[in-house]
Amino acid sequence: MNIDMIEAAALRIKGHARRTPLLSSPFLDDIAQRRVFVKAEALQHTGSFKFRGGWSAVSALTEDQRNQGVIAFSSGNHAQGVAAAASAHGVKAVIVMPADAPAVKIDNTRALGAQVVLYDRAGGESREEAAEPFTKAGMILIRPYDDEYVIAGQGTTGLEIAEQAAEQGVEAAEVLVCAGGGGLSAGIALALEAKAPQMTVRSCEPEGFDDMRISLSTGQITAHNSPASGLCDAILTPQPGNLTFPILHRLAGQGIAVTDDEAMRAMALAFNRLKLVLEPGGAVSLAAALFHGDALNEDTTIAVTTGGNVDPALFAKVLQTYG
Amino acid sequence: MNIDMIEAAALRIKGHARRTPLLSSPFLDDIAQRRVFVKAEALQHTGSFKFRGGWSAVSALTEDQRNQGVIAFSSGNHAQGVAAAASAHGVKAVIVMPADAPAVKIDNTRALGAQVVLYDRAGGESREEAAEPFTKAGMILIRPYDDEYVIAGQGTTGLEIAEQAAEQGVEAAEVLVCAGGGGLSAGIALALEAKAPQMTVRSCEPEGFDDMRISLSTGQITAHNSPASGLCDAILTPQPGNLTFPILHRLAGQGIAVTDDEAMRAMALAFNRLKLVLEPGGAVSLAAALFHGDALNEDTTIAVTTGGNVDPALFAKVLQTYG
Repeated sequence: MNIDMIEAAALRIKGHARRTPLLSSPFLDDIAQRRVFVKAEALQHTGSFKFRGGWSAVSALTEDQRNQGVIAFSSGNHAQGVAAAASAHGVKAVIVMPADAPAVKIDNTRALGAQVVLYDRAGGESREEAAEPFTKAGMILIRPYDDEYVIAGQGTTGLEIAEQAAEQGVEAAEVLVCAGGGGLSAGIALALEAKAPQMTVRSCEPEGFDDMRISLSTGQITAHNSPASGLCDAILTPQPGNLTFPILHRLAGQGIAVTDDEAMRAMALAFNRLKLVLEPGGAVSLAAALFHGDALNEDTTIAVTTGGNVDPALFAKVLQTYG
Repeated sequence: MNIDMIEAAALRIKGHARRTPLLSSPFLDDIAQRRVFVKAEALQHTGSFKFRGGWSAVSALTEDQRNQGVIAFSSGNHAQGVAAAASAHGVKAVIVMPADAPAVKIDNTRALGAQVVLYDRAGGESREEAAEPFTKAGMILIRPYDDEYVIAGQGTTGLEIAEQAAEQGVEAAEVLVCAGGGGLSAGIALALEAKAPQMTVRSCEPEGFDDMRISLSTGQITAHNSPASGLCDAILTPQPGNLTFPILHRLAGQGIAVTDDEAMRAMALAFNRLKLVLEPGGAVSLAAALFHGDALNEDTTIAVTTGGNVDPALFAKVLQTYG
């Protein structure tokens, strides 16, 4: 797993994934009391950075593998990324999703051409059970973060950050990344190690689901003790990945945990100041930039806001409370 | 007024205005039954394309003029654009705004460093009366659309559209533009005439405020008969400009009028499908692309969504009704 794999993924993705903009607002700088840039991956195809990893993995398959089709487990954003990438490549996709995932994510995944298989997470059914008939039939599993091609795809975000920061005259910065299993954080960390060595990745999570923060602090993969569901549904993985953690242990700074309240305030500020729609799990990095300045060291922060797939009713409630 | 002025404005703006992305979604293509691209000017600095015109005009001032300061009349977006541009140039700005403009626009204009002078539009006071002490003192008036430097600045949007469409392999398209006085439409029309001659500008307005549509149809500047306020507050100018209309009469196709209901549905779809915040007046072009296909001729439509400065309470209501 190295920079060459990320640059190869960037070549495969070119012209397909969007080079999302690096946004900013003097109003956000004022709140943070430092310079804040926002990498707007909610504007990526399918509304999250997951399209990059999905495209990277599907485009790397052999023709034989493509004929088998692909399968993915996902609470939503990885599902949409894989579904859209598979559909564009003419590859059949099955997505195994918890039945309690947000309706908008289930609907979108189906509309993107995938077959959706729901499993009863609350009732104790495992996603592996639901997937078994398909994996037995030979479909290729695309893991959401413990997959080198997926990490390489997410890492293309880091290549763009290095370029876009240089265009702004920025060399040193902390790059705050919303972390579930750590695929995006690890990919960006590898890209920055090669292209912008004065930048450091800082993983950001919701309080109570901060397994990455704890694992980085203890030096070993540690699970959180919280239930499987919560406001920031996109990033509530139980523990860091086996591929991603060693990369982040080597390259990332300390993790940061934010409250749900801070995530929602960040959503309202992204609405007002950037005209950008963020889902709660996609806003925790911005929340860390705005409200956890005491945990930051550099004058410049780049918050990677990772997704915008949020139910309208929840977003309306956030605006009414925090707008 | 020609392409050279627009290219000169592009040079002055380079590195200051954002090259906003050209977004798309298969879900929007399905609704429109044609290819739809969305030029996302809500992501411009100050939340609307008006920053381009403001920067173009302020950056073109002589040093003597800069020392006098600038003054602008605006219901909001032009105000913010001029305020931000003046502040960045170290030029004093006075903005004359109707007292009933959205609170967020008044607050933002002040926060961007301008002095705001409110006038009682409903009570019959004229903005000219409110502005008189400042213009008498020699401040330079920057008009929102009937100003060659402003039109040239807005026209830089058209240069980017021509480039970005070419990157997508698009040559022929109808370019739908939200129209108030017509500064953006005219600037884009001039840019496309030179750079993408197979593209045609179509002005888009709310029903009842479609003075541009009527004027293009009759061939002469004609005012609408509606009151001064309405949902799409950003674009409710009474009639086309004296500089902008001849350009659009020569270059634009027929105008399109949409209902307020369609504008709000387009806002909800931009939220769901593009993760983009639009104000009502910034969404009428997208509404035309999605719901007025019978008025369109080309297979490809580029909707210029012009602004995202909307009160959170209104946006929440739109999501609850149309999301």
